[in-house]
Amino acid sequence: MNIALDMMGGDFAPLEAVKGLQLFLSEKQNNLTLTLIGDTEKIRPLLDQYQIDSKSISLFHSEQIIGMHEHPTKAMKEKPQSSIAIGFHLLATSKVDAFISAGNTGAMLVGSLFSIKAIEGISRPAIGAYIPRENGELSLLIDVGLNADCKPENLSQFALLGTLFARHILNFETPRVALINVGEEEGKGNLLCQGAYPLLKENSKLNFIGNIEGRDLLMNKAEIYVCDGFTGNVLLKFAESFYDIIQKRNIRDEFLNRFNFEIYGGVPVLGVNKPVIIGHGISHSGAFNNMIKMAQKMIENNFIEKIKSNFINV
Amino acid sequence: MNIALDMMGGDFAPLEAVKGLQLFLSEKQNNLTLTLIGDTEKIRPLLDQYQIDSKSISLFHSEQIIGMHEHPTKAMKEKPQSSIAIGFHLLATSKVDAFISAGNTGAMLVGSLFSIKAIEGISRPAIGAYIPRENGELSLLIDVGLNADCKPENLSQFALLGTLFARHILNFETPRVALINVGEEEGKGNLLCQGAYPLLKENSKLNFIGNIEGRDLLMNKAEIYVCDGFTGNVLLKFAESFYDIIQKRNIRDEFLNRFNFEIYGGVPVLGVNKPVIIGHGISHSGAFNNMIKMAQKMIENNFIEKIKSNFINV
Repeated sequence: MNIALDMMGGDFAPLEAVKGLQLFLSEKQNNLTLTLIGDTEKIRPLLDQYQIDSKSISLFHSEQIIGMHEHPTKAMKEKPQSSIAIGFHLLATSKVDAFISAGNTGAMLVGSLFSIKAIEGISRPAIGAYIPRENGELSLLIDVGLNADCKPENLSQFALLGTLFARHILNFETPRVALINVGEEEGKGNLLCQGAYPLLKENSKLNFIGNIEGRDLLMNKAEIYVCDGFTGNVLLKFAESFYDIIQKRNIRDEFLNRFNFEIYGGVPVLGVNKPVIIGHGISHSGAFNNMIKMAQKMIENNFIEKIKSNFINV
Repeated sequence: MNIALDMMGGDFAPLEAVKGLQLFLSEKQNNLTLTLIGDTEKIRPLLDQYQIDSKSISLFHSEQIIGMHEHPTKAMKEKPQSSIAIGFHLLATSKVDAFISAGNTGAMLVGSLFSIKAIEGISRPAIGAYIPRENGELSLLIDVGLNADCKPENLSQFALLGTLFARHILNFETPRVALINVGEEEGKGNLLCQGAYPLLKENSKLNFIGNIEGRDLLMNKAEIYVCDGFTGNVLLKFAESFYDIIQKRNIRDEFLNRFNFEIYGGVPVLGVNKPVIIGHGISHSGAFNNMIKMAQKMIENNFIEKIKSNFINV
């Protein structure tokens, strides 16, 4: 197993990536190789300093960096020697089994869609993000940004992608799916929800529990919250800002601390042909550690194959 | 000035409405009449108990009540003697100047749209709700539920309605308008936002500052947040649930307490021909007091006329 890690992505690169690596390697014996992509001159001294075992890693030098605010498509085209472009090249050519970066999100999406591409039968890959529930568990909000405009069929596919992720990665055997809406009754909501509801209800691969409202997201009602990428993105960023304020105001609370989205690592791009994980720009060592673990679990569980088999003839 | 108040609406009716009335009347000398609609047998003893000055009020008996979970259109048709139906009748026939209820929200909307009707030139009335900003001020989120599916033109009208409300009721002279979106740059977002952005930018009656993301809503960036009613409704209910959790966890914080949406009173239906204010089902005395004050201010400032003059030839 070989997992590629972009060492130049995120606000604290490459230091926090190296520290995350150290954490990961210290926790248990791993039978995997980590391909570290980045400026080797900058990375090597840090690897020495943090005593990273050279048997576990392989260095891949990259000349260029895609900045956090660069235009994604343009940057991916003009910077083939960037750590993100190289990561996708290694992944597309099966030199590595997964790719992780906390760099430019747009570039990660461009790479996922155009270099790795959607799994056959999936019209729109999506991004899932964790939402902490009051009971201590996590739900997956999908989509949080890839698809601003959706059709009902897309939401139905997001629901199945989320179900498979919740089952095989989050260990919920029969995860409940809910449609985010403005009311509980069938028939409520915008045209998208009105169209998606019957599709979700009829899909025998889903454990669909119906609509839920904004006020239910933190309750123990479902493991998967389905919505278009516009709604999901606005909701997720709003929740993130809540945590910022809690921090600023020096409020310490176990539940509210779980709104520190950084602790979960990154968000998976679901529906593409290889495991791709996108980290938050502010990722620290713990986030990198968790992203490597998520990638490892996705590979160990043959997660991509499980998605493929569920989308054949769908 | 005559303001009609539904005494039977809300979870704590009619007691909290009476207590709210007492609060309102105790705060300052008012030259207005409050028309109290409800079951007079239930209301009269409470008015005595709370020593409500009979000179300030006029009782209007209603036989029926529309329950919180009744189907709005059906209930409004089948219960013409309900407090909500009577309230709208009094308002439509100019017997009163404003109508307030914490009862069935759907019935309040049906009454607003079909009995009071949209102001000429306004294709879709909307509901505005307060969002507390970190700096202690309030922003208006519009729409939060009347229009699940919107066209760009609707969002532009919401922006102007919000601007007029923020100027004349919230006292912001040149309120800033922001479009809720998934990114800051023009051209970002779903088709609705892509279409609405240029309309907002070109509208000389608006102080449009551009897109804002979910993470900016609690910051001091704008006084009016424009979005479709689906997004607004999900966001508002999510924010409300945050406050519930904060309460449950016994967290006491001045800023977080401002997420107790009840303190603001109710939300105005903007774009209809008369002042209509909808209260939260859980409204207590303070909410009723604030709703009466908001109605009073809307009447005193000729708010409806100001809207009308701004939508002539728009």
